[in-house]
Amino acid sequence: MSALRLLQEALGPLVDVDDATLEVARADRSGHAAVGRPLAVVHAQTVDDVQQTMRIATATRTPVVVRGAGTGLAGAANAGEGEIVLSTRRMTAVLEVRPDDLLAVVEPGILNADLNDQLAEHGVWWAPDPASRDISTVGGNIATGAGGLLCAKYGVVRDAVLGVDLVLADGRLLHLGHRSVKGVTGLDLTSLVIGSEGTLGVVVGATLKLRRLVPGDVCTVAATFPGVRAAAAASAAITAAGVQPAIMELMDAASLAAVHTLLALPAPASETAQLTIRTDGPAAAAEVATIVGILQSHGGVTAVSHDREEGERLLAIRRSMHPAISALGTALIEDVSVPRSAMPAMFDEIARIEREFGLTIPTVAHAGDGNLHPNFVFEGTEAPAHVWAAADELFRAAIRLGGTLTGEHGIGVLKRRWLADELGDDQWQLQRQIAAVFDPLGILNPGKVFEPDA
Amino acid sequence: MSALRLLQEALGPLVDVDDATLEVARADRSGHAAVGRPLAVVHAQTVDDVQQTMRIATATRTPVVVRGAGTGLAGAANAGEGEIVLSTRRMTAVLEVRPDDLLAVVEPGILNADLNDQLAEHGVWWAPDPASRDISTVGGNIATGAGGLLCAKYGVVRDAVLGVDLVLADGRLLHLGHRSVKGVTGLDLTSLVIGSEGTLGVVVGATLKLRRLVPGDVCTVAATFPGVRAAAAASAAITAAGVQPAIMELMDAASLAAVHTLLALPAPASETAQLTIRTDGPAAAAEVATIVGILQSHGGVTAVSHDREEGERLLAIRRSMHPAISALGTALIEDVSVPRSAMPAMFDEIARIEREFGLTIPTVAHAGDGNLHPNFVFEGTEAPAHVWAAADELFRAAIRLGGTLTGEHGIGVLKRRWLADELGDDQWQLQRQIAAVFDPLGILNPGKVFEPDA
Repeated sequence: MSALRLLQEALGPLVDVDDATLEVARADRSGHAAVGRPLAVVHAQTVDDVQQTMRIATATRTPVVVRGAGTGLAGAANAGEGEIVLSTRRMTAVLEVRPDDLLAVVEPGILNADLNDQLAEHGVWWAPDPASRDISTVGGNIATGAGGLLCAKYGVVRDAVLGVDLVLADGRLLHLGHRSVKGVTGLDLTSLVIGSEGTLGVVVGATLKLRRLVPGDVCTVAATFPGVRAAAAASAAITAAGVQPAIMELMDAASLAAVHTLLALPAPASETAQLTIRTDGPAAAAEVATIVGILQSHGGVTAVSHDREEGERLLAIRRSMHPAISALGTALIEDVSVPRSAMPAMFDEIARIEREFGLTIPTVAHAGDGNLHPNFVFEGTEAPAHVWAAADELFRAAIRLGGTLTGEHGIGVLKRRWLADELGDDQWQLQRQIAAVFDPLGILNPGKVFEPDA
Repeated sequence: MSALRLLQEALGPLVDVDDATLEVARADRSGHAAVGRPLAVVHAQTVDDVQQTMRIATATRTPVVVRGAGTGLAGAANAGEGEIVLSTRRMTAVLEVRPDDLLAVVEPGILNADLNDQLAEHGVWWAPDPASRDISTVGGNIATGAGGLLCAKYGVVRDAVLGVDLVLADGRLLHLGHRSVKGVTGLDLTSLVIGSEGTLGVVVGATLKLRRLVPGDVCTVAATFPGVRAAAAASAAITAAGVQPAIMELMDAASLAAVHTLLALPAPASETAQLTIRTDGPAAAAEVATIVGILQSHGGVTAVSHDREEGERLLAIRRSMHPAISALGTALIEDVSVPRSAMPAMFDEIARIEREFGLTIPTVAHAGDGNLHPNFVFEGTEAPAHVWAAADELFRAAIRLGGTLTGEHGIGVLKRRWLADELGDDQWQLQRQIAAVFDPLGILNPGKVFEPDA
């Protein structure tokens, strides 16, 4: 019997073959879409639904693409011809919140923002805050190893997950990790699953490490500079001075101009770049005073707010970046990360690539942690060859500067051809062999992360 | 040619077959010693020495036990008959310190405390602080996934390593991880190596994530309680109240009495338990005021110091625990960890086990993170059967309470027979298969962590 027929017999109305549903599952927010159409979307509601799906996939050797809300930026959840889409989006329960133990047990399909709304009633929060937090799932955050704006101070997903429940390719359920703060029993498979982009198994539950809501003030400062290099140098000086902003976001001139256009604000002076910085906690006011001094000594013109809502208005310019860029065309949002001290040099490299390729590459950066998002804007749905050639230069520059080709978006399909460049061939082979231990038949997200034949 | 002969030809005087050296390499600080004697100790001085050793080990199928300072508490670095001991203790260089990027690149043999002495000159520190910090190596801390006293606030080793350089069983060198704050390129093999206890490869270098030295005051409070349960409840209430001590150490009555005896202090009242708590950073004084209120409302009698040196004197009682217990006999130092809210229940379980087995089990706990160290004291070098039977009860109780059988010491040889109980058989098998990808011939620390035939 065919895989589709078996799924329908086992799972009935959870198996969705609606044209529109299948079409949506081909693409994520990267703009990239898979070739062909998936077989079906299984809307799993329980762990058992996931296990049944995987047993059928194994029995019929059918590839499975696990999918949450489809907000990825690397094509990792895009499903093509003949593949089963296993959606965990309907598994949204918060099974347990323990403020005394600073942990929560959740299903993978809940949106990051919805989870945090529920946690706030208990005085706690889950720190990972990807820019997609309103539309991306916790399971997707775990699968990509997501970052966000607050990472320099509050960590990334890998710092905020104690354990995951994982369904293997053959349908077996494993409980990885622990509920205690410390735990070193055996190999750390929880960390291995975080960021594995659907290649090792299906995350059907997670034990999350929470933080208490941060008491005290929030201070926000926005500073404009006569160029991006000065802004980058100022942000590096802030980190070097030992103050720890909660948020430190940098926008280059092209980004700032695009947002001003979108929001119908007066155009900034040519070459103007901006830093937006938030401090929080008991030392917020003292830290912001130190920061203002550093910004001004680097030529920044500053505006400070000690009011939370007014601070949000200052940050709104940064948060409007994605819609502003999308208004210009299709955007390939890149994601290199470098040691913080290399940020000015990385901006020099971006300027060089812009000149050499005749491109404008609007760039924003999580300046507190050295993660840059250069945006390539083009017409149509697939990035043209000269954009990929420019991106290739960008990746090589980041690696030369001691950085990495993806800070928080993942490899997916879009960056797999550079993976071995960063890992080296020996490590690349080893990683493939480890994935094969979890998935000996190669049915979990085949062709993603690892090239099918490199 | 024999493995020993090949090693001697390749590495000359680095190959040590001195009787006393070989004897020392049989044991660690757990009291346990391997059966028989190792072949030789190779005192590697360079990465190339390590690679040559591993190539010879692979060519001759000779088991290799990697060893730092030999301070482990689970027998993971104990070498027996016919094994090569590969010591990285002489690789002590600090290759790079970057305060601006909050990272350092180090060799594995440097002692934790020596590293932190060097880092202090740059205004930074590496947070992991196992009680053994004066005598244990950074490589050993990484191999065990060490914790310590400061973990609830400042994290464990896994939170403080960006990358490791790993020599595989066959001598190939891999560079795992990254230098940037964020990085999700491929699978997170760095986290997999942390806590792998010498089963995946030889850590020959590490890129460490540093913190700035914490500015501001240090406040310390010692509080005595009429019983350990009251002390445990007070510590849980402190965590639940949202204050974040840097250190929160609990000593039960038997521990406190042993230390008072060692230090020739007046004996505490019967059943007296103690909490010693430190706060630091900008909110230190405010937090200690809140903490004192909670302690007193739980029946604690408090002594507070706002002076760093006087605070050290209050902590000295806790730091004297290991010598105090060692003075009583051979100590098997256990290491269960439970969710913080389960600490009082875990102390109830320990009391039950004491009654059932007719034992006294002096126990200290890192109360801020739920990690308990119950001590079994006995005569001779090997723990007798009734001690292991009591430890078995202890492990099962911890797992029942949502905890783990080792928070920071590792599995080694002493706890391998309980590993599958916690992981489940499916995960246990998967972990073995992953280890086999790194070490297909099974020459890396054979018989450690995973039972040879379970």
